[in-house]
Amino acid sequence: MNAAWWKNRRVVVTGGAGFLGANLCHALAGLGARVTAIDAMFEEGGANPRNLDGAGVMLVRGDLRDMELHSLCKGTEVLFNLAAQTSHMGGQKDPVADININAVSQVRLIQVMREAAPAARVVHASTRQFYGRPLYLPVNEMHPVNPPDANGVSKWAGEQYWLLESRVLHRPVVSLRLTNCYGPRLRIRDAKQTFLGIWVRRLLENEPFEVWGGAQLRDLAYVDDVTEAFLIAAECADQEGVNGQVFNLGGAPPVSLLELAERVIAANGGQGSFGTKEFPADRAPIDIGSYHADDHAFRKATGWAPRISLDEGLRLTLDWYRERLPDYL
Amino acid sequence: MNAAWWKNRRVVVTGGAGFLGANLCHALAGLGARVTAIDAMFEEGGANPRNLDGAGVMLVRGDLRDMELHSLCKGTEVLFNLAAQTSHMGGQKDPVADININAVSQVRLIQVMREAAPAARVVHASTRQFYGRPLYLPVNEMHPVNPPDANGVSKWAGEQYWLLESRVLHRPVVSLRLTNCYGPRLRIRDAKQTFLGIWVRRLLENEPFEVWGGAQLRDLAYVDDVTEAFLIAAECADQEGVNGQVFNLGGAPPVSLLELAERVIAANGGQGSFGTKEFPADRAPIDIGSYHADDHAFRKATGWAPRISLDEGLRLTLDWYRERLPDYL
Repeated sequence: MNAAWWKNRRVVVTGGAGFLGANLCHALAGLGARVTAIDAMFEEGGANPRNLDGAGVMLVRGDLRDMELHSLCKGTEVLFNLAAQTSHMGGQKDPVADININAVSQVRLIQVMREAAPAARVVHASTRQFYGRPLYLPVNEMHPVNPPDANGVSKWAGEQYWLLESRVLHRPVVSLRLTNCYGPRLRIRDAKQTFLGIWVRRLLENEPFEVWGGAQLRDLAYVDDVTEAFLIAAECADQEGVNGQVFNLGGAPPVSLLELAERVIAANGGQGSFGTKEFPADRAPIDIGSYHADDHAFRKATGWAPRISLDEGLRLTLDWYRERLPDYL
Repeated sequence: MNAAWWKNRRVVVTGGAGFLGANLCHALAGLGARVTAIDAMFEEGGANPRNLDGAGVMLVRGDLRDMELHSLCKGTEVLFNLAAQTSHMGGQKDPVADININAVSQVRLIQVMREAAPAARVVHASTRQFYGRPLYLPVNEMHPVNPPDANGVSKWAGEQYWLLESRVLHRPVVSLRLTNCYGPRLRIRDAKQTFLGIWVRRLLENEPFEVWGGAQLRDLAYVDDVTEAFLIAAECADQEGVNGQVFNLGGAPPVSLLELAERVIAANGGQGSFGTKEFPADRAPIDIGSYHADDHAFRKATGWAPRISLDEGLRLTLDWYRERLPDYL
């Protein structure tokens, strides 16, 4: 990462009050960028007003489906595009809202950006989710797309519209297909953002947490590593072999959920307990089994590599929430 | 095809006044099905009020984006879902309308069908288009999806929402990814539906037609063969290996556009001429080069095979339009 590159850059972060967006805003502000965060602050999403405490960035509350965007986007040099409906169950319950948020709004934003910031680089936050239940592991970018739910369809469509901006109009665009991410500013109130959120909450409340299934493998990515990947992707976005590409982004070496449960208890000083239960029948269609990413393409193209070990990341996460628990319940 | 199966079936055909939809309506009515055609009659699309002349089906004019659908869908046993924005250039010019027509409306229709006709079979008209420029030929269903334009993104999303209805809710759904189709009731006023339309018009007006490029291979499918594929797909839709599947559908053995130009002139009694020009620069991003389908999966699963040769199909097409040219200009 090239810290000097960011000084005084005009940056917009959609979903900027969410988990990844807010961490990115803190990092960008620390590098001297001029940051505007946009967030709809959905009750059911990852946004938390406390996420931007102390960041020194401007937060504009608005919904990409209908807000005025032109003046906000004008002059933008880098757009980090993280606004999304990410709830799998939410997509099944209201698929019209889901596609409007994740795809139609993206088309709208694209059209505004064509006029307001035709040269801006774009890093789009995408997801492993639409690969569905992996046909092989680790999953590389050639893995067939086979969305397990409506949310996977809409997220794929939103990504593809951005890639067309590179292919057809030559805008520098990179899409990062993320694995499960965790760390400070994750929604921990419930399991709506990721299962690890509610585990953290239960641990800090001295309650047992639940493991659904247990044998599934996951390669959790610590948020600081993900933030760095976004920054590097933006810096490299105009390079041959990066521009217009999708990249899988993984994290720590894969562990089963049962092993992860042991590791997070260890990171909590050995305090905590969990029970296991079957993956709930009503969620079976969206249970993708094991996943871990083959992210060597992104590592090779950009030099990025994760730096925080799983044990360290879990400890950092628990420590961060220990002091701020009431703000995240 | 099992003619008796269709007697008195309640069938809805969306896009029923369009090229493929109208041919399907004529066939269904001939088999004794009770058919409702729905069509928005877009000026720029494939619909033509004359397409349903003599078919004996009910045409409801309405737009899936906002029309009342519940009463129309109630009791439906088979839904042939052909309504779409199919114009590649239209999708680039107004991608918000494009995704609303091809994806958001499909989500809406799906939700109505869950209530109004939970057991109905669905055959969805999909497209080769989102494979983009083929990485290999012939293109099978495992070919990566790489849409060359906004219309390809929206058509893929619409298809995937339907496939989820099979995967999650076990509705019998089949999606047919069509190659270039031709025959009676094709839009020939201009090149908006397929290049062959305007060729037919020019030939019948004794004017030279234009070949863009010329070396590209195409496997044209004659509409009667496509109609039969839709009927067979519906009949087999509840079978293991068919339900929930996507199938590529090809046509005649592939020919280059230059050879096709010679063949269509031969089918016109040797009358006609053409010039060639470069593929226009403003359409280069959506020029996919050669395409022909590997459709052995559909043939094997259902026993379908095309029966009309290219020469015969071209002759039948020209003969049909010769008597009806003014209605299609």
